[in-house]
Amino acid sequence: MKHIPYRYYLPEEKMPKTWYNLRAAMPEKPDPLINPGTGKPVTPDDLRPVFCDKLIAQELDNDTPEFDIPQPILDMYRIYRPSPLVRAYRMEAALKTPAHIYYKFEGNNTSGSHKLNSALAQVFYAKDQGLKSLTTETGAGQWGTAVAEACAAFGLDLTVYMVRGSYDQKPYRKDVMRTFGATVYPSPSDTTQAGRAILARDPHTTGSLGCAISEAVEKAVTTPDCRYVLGSVLNQVLLHQSIIGLESYEALLEFNEYPDIVIGCAGGGSNLGGLMAPFMRDTLEGKRKGTRYIAVEPASCPSLTRGRYEYDFCDTGKITPMAKMYTLGAEFIPSPNHAGGLRYHGMSPIISKLYHDGYMEAVSYEQTNVFDAAVQFARLETILPAPESAHAIRCAMDEAIRCRETGEEKIILFGLTGTGYFDMSAYASYCDGTMTDYVPKDSEILAR
Amino acid sequence: MKHIPYRYYLPEEKMPKTWYNLRAAMPEKPDPLINPGTGKPVTPDDLRPVFCDKLIAQELDNDTPEFDIPQPILDMYRIYRPSPLVRAYRMEAALKTPAHIYYKFEGNNTSGSHKLNSALAQVFYAKDQGLKSLTTETGAGQWGTAVAEACAAFGLDLTVYMVRGSYDQKPYRKDVMRTFGATVYPSPSDTTQAGRAILARDPHTTGSLGCAISEAVEKAVTTPDCRYVLGSVLNQVLLHQSIIGLESYEALLEFNEYPDIVIGCAGGGSNLGGLMAPFMRDTLEGKRKGTRYIAVEPASCPSLTRGRYEYDFCDTGKITPMAKMYTLGAEFIPSPNHAGGLRYHGMSPIISKLYHDGYMEAVSYEQTNVFDAAVQFARLETILPAPESAHAIRCAMDEAIRCRETGEEKIILFGLTGTGYFDMSAYASYCDGTMTDYVPKDSEILAR
Repeated sequence: MKHIPYRYYLPEEKMPKTWYNLRAAMPEKPDPLINPGTGKPVTPDDLRPVFCDKLIAQELDNDTPEFDIPQPILDMYRIYRPSPLVRAYRMEAALKTPAHIYYKFEGNNTSGSHKLNSALAQVFYAKDQGLKSLTTETGAGQWGTAVAEACAAFGLDLTVYMVRGSYDQKPYRKDVMRTFGATVYPSPSDTTQAGRAILARDPHTTGSLGCAISEAVEKAVTTPDCRYVLGSVLNQVLLHQSIIGLESYEALLEFNEYPDIVIGCAGGGSNLGGLMAPFMRDTLEGKRKGTRYIAVEPASCPSLTRGRYEYDFCDTGKITPMAKMYTLGAEFIPSPNHAGGLRYHGMSPIISKLYHDGYMEAVSYEQTNVFDAAVQFARLETILPAPESAHAIRCAMDEAIRCRETGEEKIILFGLTGTGYFDMSAYASYCDGTMTDYVPKDSEILAR
Repeated sequence: MKHIPYRYYLPEEKMPKTWYNLRAAMPEKPDPLINPGTGKPVTPDDLRPVFCDKLIAQELDNDTPEFDIPQPILDMYRIYRPSPLVRAYRMEAALKTPAHIYYKFEGNNTSGSHKLNSALAQVFYAKDQGLKSLTTETGAGQWGTAVAEACAAFGLDLTVYMVRGSYDQKPYRKDVMRTFGATVYPSPSDTTQAGRAILARDPHTTGSLGCAISEAVEKAVTTPDCRYVLGSVLNQVLLHQSIIGLESYEALLEFNEYPDIVIGCAGGGSNLGGLMAPFMRDTLEGKRKGTRYIAVEPASCPSLTRGRYEYDFCDTGKITPMAKMYTLGAEFIPSPNHAGGLRYHGMSPIISKLYHDGYMEAVSYEQTNVFDAAVQFARLETILPAPESAHAIRCAMDEAIRCRETGEEKIILFGLTGTGYFDMSAYASYCDGTMTDYVPKDSEILAR
């Protein structure tokens, strides 16, 4: 058997040149976005004030399996990609597991996460259309940083609405975005009608992704030559993030390995959707049987495990289209003690549909348990994981421990989406023993 | 000509298996460390209470050119090495230079810098000798983080004395070290005689590396089964850091490139000494002519460009051996407005000797000028550099601009030592326009 290095980087010439659209392989497609005004599926014209044209085409295309990655995006990808596929030898040894544990590490770039993959794509298309500026929202700050980097690379102005809880918890995140030239407001802010309305109801709110989306969309549609970009949930984002899975697939092929279990943290679903795409294709097309796909979410924001599968707004202000997805309700705001991202009330319609149709599993973990895994992982693998990524680590460890008990030599692949350098207040509370868990009551989730 | 990728990673099997000891090639060796008690060169017995035995042998060996890297260290290196050699195509294009600009990027690991290379070596040897704990000091925090990671990997306890100015400026750095299991004190502290003495003289001091070294050494020699480790200046550290240069050399060979100019930031000299080692060997052995080596230092801590070449203590408390080096005086403390590392009063005796003998150049830059380069680099290359590394960027950009003016297609190699994720308060002050420069007066430097 060929020697498997600790960190494997595909050579530049083997980098994927196309993204893969998982919807093309789905026997039943995700339900369409609905225009809440007409009650009908959204049209490209409905979306045109918000998204740029090429992205609308990608968003609404359920059939084309492959999209060419434009050369300027490939040129940026090759600065920080391929990302390493890591065989976690030290973690395997520490867990005394016969499992082979792999993780695809997307934190080796300054955005600190996989988010840059879609940010570069979205910003390029905006530039290509002749737009001058973009708006977006950010929760933990990774998406905002990624878009700020991409806007610096392609020369567009950017306004970021950052969830106020994160803005206060991670003051330096905004300074990274400013270093890349972005303007950053804590959300809710007084710069939009949506923000002012939310502040009027609750002046001390820590904000939510749903609320920040409302503000960013409003700002985009009221500014000339401006559009809005979103870092997760949307079909186009999962399309761009398929680069993660395609590289993983290719790299594992070289070592004749194929995952029995694919694990990803899931907030809006961008990482997991991208990571699993080519493997799920094999499952959907019947080429492989028995592969398990596990979405891991925080117990404090459990959209798949405790939400309802129904049409809901993508934002708190209810100005966006409605999506058929697992949702906790557009007004849901995670408890302030929740660290990191994975704080969105809904879930990618693609993942929601696959989960609903039985192709996937979902689990949720409480925060302290997740940080137990994060700290153990850091000490073993020398990478300080983002809290988001640590959800996948927790699950991968538990599956590997199960293999130790059963003696099964399973191949486990998980997404290590990013690094935790801007999450040190959460790590500090863990080290101090003051970290707390929170599981929302049914009345908080279903009060709508 | 073979295509040069943006980021090139040597395959695992081409990783160096030995470190290279540059002293072996020096026609005149660096002057020996002096025991201030006896006035004579230090003996292994003098150093035994402070350093572990294998490291003493490396420290005092001027002749052996190559040292085998023990397998457990290689096993850890392969988790995060080889580090990428990056061809800065976007920077070249933006500067409109015919120069080829390469940088060796050491920030792709959680310590955020090259420091992990020596930390793993030093901690392994301590473990191998049966020691139970280590002490060290840290300035900007990168070295402390690296040792904390290494101690977590090899299972030793660690106490870190962190320069108080950095401790206050970068509160999250200590939390990273704590996450890896270290105990961190701001220095000067009341836990040592040296610290109490310095506090008695100046209760509001922001501290210095020299002072933190005094505390860490005192703690090591007064604790059973404990030794001290240092992240720069020492010969052993430059030996371990030669891995940077060896990988760069090998990678450049594959593309038939050889640097005309090798540039590194220089605080204690560990990165530059490691990066240049195999190239300087060629120069010293007459195999190559005309290669320039440039040490870049902050104008606020200009040991090579404004210090004296003489014997001085390595620490403020004057409990360490004396080294012949360029020094600003053991009492020198950089102005509090100075961000990041590169705040040591002295310089590696190897680099000092080579500079004194005319093999190297040195330049200094003021802080705002350095951050101009840092921000331009971040926006072009997508990496947020550490302030330390940005000194080398500034110099590389200036040399590349010179090439634009002369039309010379020079090959420039610089060390990008790490990332600036924990230096955001400095970036914020730059973005706010409140960053200031400081050039010490002669009376501050030479008052001794």
